[in-house]
This record gives sequence, C-alpha cells and structure tokens, in this order.
Amino acid sequence: MFDKDSTTPARPPVVQRRGVERRRAILDAAEALLAEQGYEAATLKAVGERAGIPTASMYHYFPDRHQVDAELLLHHLRQLDALVDGVLEAPEPCTLEGVADALIDTVLAYFRGHRSCTELWFAGRDETLEALVRGFDEAQAERLWLLLTERNLVAADTPRHVAQIAFEIAGRFFDIAFRRSPDGDDVTMDEGRRMLTAYFRTYAPAEA
Amino acid sequence: MFDKDSTTPARPPVVQRRGVERRRAILDAAEALLAEQGYEAATLKAVGERAGIPTASMYHYFPDRHQVDAELLLHHLRQLDALVDGVLEAPEPCTLEGVADALIDTVLAYFRGHRSCTELWFAGRDETLEALVRGFDEAQAERLWLLLTERNLVAADTPRHVAQIAFEIAGRFFDIAFRRSPDGDDVTMDEGRRMLTAYFRTYAPAEA
Repeated sequence: MFDKDSTTPARPPVVQRRGVERRRAILDAAEALLAEQGYEAATLKAVGERAGIPTASMYHYFPDRHQVDAELLLHHLRQLDALVDGVLEAPEPCTLEGVADALIDTVLAYFRGHRSCTELWFAGRDETLEALVRGFDEAQAERLWLLLTERNLVAADTPRHVAQIAFEIAGRFFDIAFRRSPDGDDVTMDEGRRMLTAYFRTYAPAEA
Repeated sequence: MFDKDSTTPARPPVVQRRGVERRRAILDAAEALLAEQGYEAATLKAVGERAGIPTASMYHYFPDRHQVDAELLLHHLRQLDALVDGVLEAPEPCTLEGVADALIDTVLAYFRGHRSCTELWFAGRDETLEALVRGFDEAQAERLWLLLTERNLVAADTPRHVAQIAFEIAGRFFDIAFRRSPDGDDVTMDEGRRMLTAYFRTYAPAEA
C-alpha cells in the first residue's frame, strides 16, 4: 500500500538508487525525531532538515507527513507481528495468566525499546494510523482466540469478538500507561493484566 | 471556566440581553448540527449559518469552535454528573453486577438520548474536551470507590486507582460501542459489563 515502486516509471539506475537512499534517509530522520522529540516535533519540514533534504524535494518522496508516519508504523507492526507470532506459537504458557503476561511483556518491551512506535501508536491520532493498528489488532485477536480455544483455556463456544475486545482494551491500557509515564507505567499495566485475565476467566470451560 | 461574563465590561442592558440570546442561539444551533450531522459538520461557519448570525459576528461570542464544543460538553457533563450521583446515592443495588449495570444503563441511556454529547465525547478529539471528560471520570471514580468500599463490595484496601482505571476502560467501551453503531452496540456494552464486574470481583473482600 505504501510501496509505490511498482507504479514508478523506469528511471536510470543511479537516479533510482539515489531515490531509494533518500527515502531511507527520510524514514531514519523521522524515526529519530519521533524518538527524541515526540510526535508534534516530527513535521515534514523538521524531518527534511534532519535528513539534509530541501523541503521542496521532500514532497517528491512523501506527499505529507502522514505517509512517512504510516510507513514507519507499518515497519513496527511487522516486527511486532513476528514477536507476537512467536508467543502464540510457543508450546507454553498453558494458563490464562501466563498467556496474558507473555503477550503484554512482549509488546511492553517492544514499546519501551521503540519510542517512535509509541509516539505513532498513541500520539499520532491519524485515521490511517488508527486503521493500521486496528488491522493488526484484529489479525492478532483472531489468532489469540484460536490459541485460547485450542488449549482449552476458554470454552469452545466463546465468541470471537471476546478476543477482539480484549485486544482493543489492552491497547487502551498501553495508551494510559504511556501517557502516565514515558516508560509505560507498571501499575497501570498490572491492572491491565488483572482485568484481562479476569475477563477471559469468565469464559473458562465449565469443567476447569 | 467558560463563562466569561465576569470579565466583560459593563454594557447597556439591551446589548447585554442580545448578547446572551445570541450565545444561546449559537449553542442551540451547534447542538442541533452535532446531533443531526456529526462532529465534522458542526464548524463555526455552519453553526453561524444555522443560527442566522454572520460568521464575522460569531467570533465576538466564541473565538473558535472548540469553545462552543467545550461549553456544550460541560452542560452534558453536569447533567450526567447529577444522574450518576443519583445512582451512587441510591441505597440499592448491593452487588457488583447491580452497580455496574445501574451505572452503565444510566450513561448509555443518556448517550442514546443526546447524540451531540456522544459526538463531542468520542469524535471531538480535542485536548480541552478530553481534559473535561477526564475530570468528570476522576471525580466520579472517586465516589464509586467510596460506594464500593462502604458497601463492602470490594476490600477496604482496594487501591483508589482501581476505580479510576475502571472508569477509563468503561469510557473505552462506550467509544467502541458508539463507533460500531450510532445507537451504541449492545453486544460491546455487555462485554463491558462483564469485564468490569470480573475485574472488581478480583478485589472482593476475602470473606465474601
């Protein structure tokens, strides 16, 4: 969706390579500015200055900052996707608490290590970014539902929307935690683990 | 905070009265536009046209739409405050489910009957509006905590932030429910009741 290479007309290799390098430089500059100074500071102009690219040329690579933000967030979502996959495919844990902890610990560690990701996720209230996050949530929720039903941690007839809602609410806890502290407030996240585990437990199989 | 009367220099009574009437007409027009066409449509220009007041004169009463929005939301919050007070001061209900249902039913009915309020609450993502909602949440959460501990529905040593977090998460459920359906999706709200009740139950007194 954000990779426009396929629709770009053929250009000499040198020009093409410079284009790829400049796009990369812009994305790196945006990533650094988001991490160091936050969402508001990372305007297209400021990113261009940091990357050493004149503002007028910036529009050649990205029509507005939202396209830069979206490409960066997509990169983070792919990495998070792989990490969450790892948790969901591991044979352990086999309790609701264990699954909730493993998922929350994984995402929390990623957010803590990638400030630019939390800025885009929580401060950048853009429709495109929200749609990307929602798509990620929905795909992961579906797989969490499969894991919980397969491991008999929730009853087989638990509605799929239970996992969807849990992911949305987990996102809200991260939002609150990172609003309270740049490192993600642990007290808030502990209440999140508690609330989500208690919620899933109401769907536990009758015999458990 | 939004009532500027005290700082307005003295004016002849007729001018003053016309000013009050025009402010009222602007607020009524904004309320109607928000309810009928949603947040995006209720610009200061559109509100002025509906109220029959030239755009240039609008700035005399409200410097921007955010001031109109804030005054309307404050009005809704005062009404909601009185309604929630009624629930919290009633001798019944005496179970966690009962308290959760009574609070959620009250707020849900108000939102359903006041579309302009949901537009401001959920679509109007303005810092001032968010601060107003947060202030409301915090005050009500404090009183819910008192009620739950007084009625021994949660243990006396339950941290106050438990009720704060519950109010924030309840707000998130309303947000999801009204994003899914203009009438507030019942399936979502039922999961909200379930999740919040299960969460509070983890703080139930040991002997209960």
